[in-house]
Amino acid sequence: MSATSQRIVLASRPTGAVTPDNFRLETVPVPEPAEGQVLVRVHYLSLDPYMKGRMIESRSYAQPHPIGDTMIGGTVGVVEKSRNPKFMAGDTVAGVLGWQEYGLSDGRGLVKVDSSQVPMSAYLGVLGMPGVTAWYGLNRICEPKAGETVLVSAASGAVGSVVGQLAKMAGCRAVGIAGGPEKCGYVVDELGFDACIDHRLHPDLKSMARAVREVAPAGVDCLFENVGGICLDGTLACMNPFGRIALCGLIAGYDGEAIPIHNTRMLLVMRLKLQGFIVGEHMDAWPAALKELGAGVAGGRIKYRETIATGLASAPEAFIGLLRGRNFGKQLVKLV
Amino acid sequence: MSATSQRIVLASRPTGAVTPDNFRLETVPVPEPAEGQVLVRVHYLSLDPYMKGRMIESRSYAQPHPIGDTMIGGTVGVVEKSRNPKFMAGDTVAGVLGWQEYGLSDGRGLVKVDSSQVPMSAYLGVLGMPGVTAWYGLNRICEPKAGETVLVSAASGAVGSVVGQLAKMAGCRAVGIAGGPEKCGYVVDELGFDACIDHRLHPDLKSMARAVREVAPAGVDCLFENVGGICLDGTLACMNPFGRIALCGLIAGYDGEAIPIHNTRMLLVMRLKLQGFIVGEHMDAWPAALKELGAGVAGGRIKYRETIATGLASAPEAFIGLLRGRNFGKQLVKLV
Repeated sequence: MSATSQRIVLASRPTGAVTPDNFRLETVPVPEPAEGQVLVRVHYLSLDPYMKGRMIESRSYAQPHPIGDTMIGGTVGVVEKSRNPKFMAGDTVAGVLGWQEYGLSDGRGLVKVDSSQVPMSAYLGVLGMPGVTAWYGLNRICEPKAGETVLVSAASGAVGSVVGQLAKMAGCRAVGIAGGPEKCGYVVDELGFDACIDHRLHPDLKSMARAVREVAPAGVDCLFENVGGICLDGTLACMNPFGRIALCGLIAGYDGEAIPIHNTRMLLVMRLKLQGFIVGEHMDAWPAALKELGAGVAGGRIKYRETIATGLASAPEAFIGLLRGRNFGKQLVKLV
Repeated sequence: MSATSQRIVLASRPTGAVTPDNFRLETVPVPEPAEGQVLVRVHYLSLDPYMKGRMIESRSYAQPHPIGDTMIGGTVGVVEKSRNPKFMAGDTVAGVLGWQEYGLSDGRGLVKVDSSQVPMSAYLGVLGMPGVTAWYGLNRICEPKAGETVLVSAASGAVGSVVGQLAKMAGCRAVGIAGGPEKCGYVVDELGFDACIDHRLHPDLKSMARAVREVAPAGVDCLFENVGGICLDGTLACMNPFGRIALCGLIAGYDGEAIPIHNTRMLLVMRLKLQGFIVGEHMDAWPAALKELGAGVAGGRIKYRETIATGLASAPEAFIGLLRGRNFGKQLVKLV
């Protein structure tokens, strides 16, 4: 065990795109747990689009992240020292310890996970927040029925990939939107989606709407939206009456780009329901979601893919890459 | 009883704003009811924004109205001759007999109404489709709780006026948007809203958002949207977390104007629910709605106002006026 711990703090707020100088790497002594606390060595750090929202100061669902504080982030790791009776040294634990090599926890929000059947990194993806996000938005907002068409944007990502696979398991036609032929090929060939649109080939609304119509000839009943912009607007043009839209993310606008909705009329004319959500506000859904997701992963019916950066210092670039769509599946940073 | 009946048919489809030459007045013989049919003399014709959607050929929730057919429209009148055992000559009946002086019905969609306590015209407004629309959108989509703020656009209209009064009865702060000082004064002074924004004073998004913030200092929890455009977009900027939006109409875009939503992010960030609806698809709600609305009208707690044009020939101009916001309260045409 090294005597020092690296961490990455928020150095400044981005005014547009995130840049490396918005972060600062610091080296501090490894902290000692007080009574009731646990010291965790972080093995994997999760990078997620929501972090961008916390870095800026606009009106958002959470307080902006304080300048100088360790960046927030989901983590999985191993208990190094415990002064909390609920945890023992050697326990594998998932939690939100942030962008650092060692983190202290009083045990709240820290969950023991079983890494004997699945790699611990899965608890940051398919069996963690992204997986439960997919499950919640699909089952609690979209409520797809067998035979319906489900479209998901960012389909190769940590959330989107699970949405489509769950939709297939529910007897739906699953259609994705992803960036580039490699991701689209993966979505169809590996994940079993029925079709995938490469959004790079459809940079305008009309072209995107036409592409959606081609892959969803019976119209779209459920839209799981991670991207916004032309993805959302183009799909709106193809929604069926009483369609449901789970609004999970708007990554197309994360650098402040305008992401207007032009097909406003469709919301009324097709009597659509659109609902924004954050999975952390629906903790009651987690047990049911994790049970189904765990069974799907264990049975090989739910596949997932990870992009792993190595070393804490690589986190800022990996995060910027995630916001640009450079990752392929769940973006992680491996620290150990 | 005159031997001829006037009717107004759709002469051509509007390409933008509706114009008088989209309509044609025809004189035909008064029809004779066949076995099972009822001949109704129409006393009042209802004019409603949805009719614009039926005149054009865009993708909408209903088939476009056929050229040459009598314009669709809700009516209330008196049975003149009946060959249907469910109706007697002299019965006052509400139905959808269209823009004509005499209409035939096989009894389906025809409802006997009691005009002894309220004028029969009320069954086209507060006790008809507009009133039930208000009740449904507010109670089934917005679900306001006492103490919350409810905002409704087109607040002096047939739907909006009922929304605000029901919101007050539910213990909410009711805020309206209407066009001009006269309508705003009526909304506050007569209908009892807490405040009303004159949208003519706020032609841009920023100004409208500021105006909403002023009248809804605690934020908006429920939006009942009849207008769209800047009304919707400006209010979006002021929505509270978990706000609900009942999307009932988009009259700002009825002539084909672009009505984009710019505050897309608020839908996600505030975890809003937005739902489009058409009250005719929720017939199960009508009895409960009419019971509550009837009690409110009878008890004087729900007020309403009508703008009445006289004579069938005045219907096209009255309809064009409605689309321009020239009416004040429920727009009717009096035929008898």
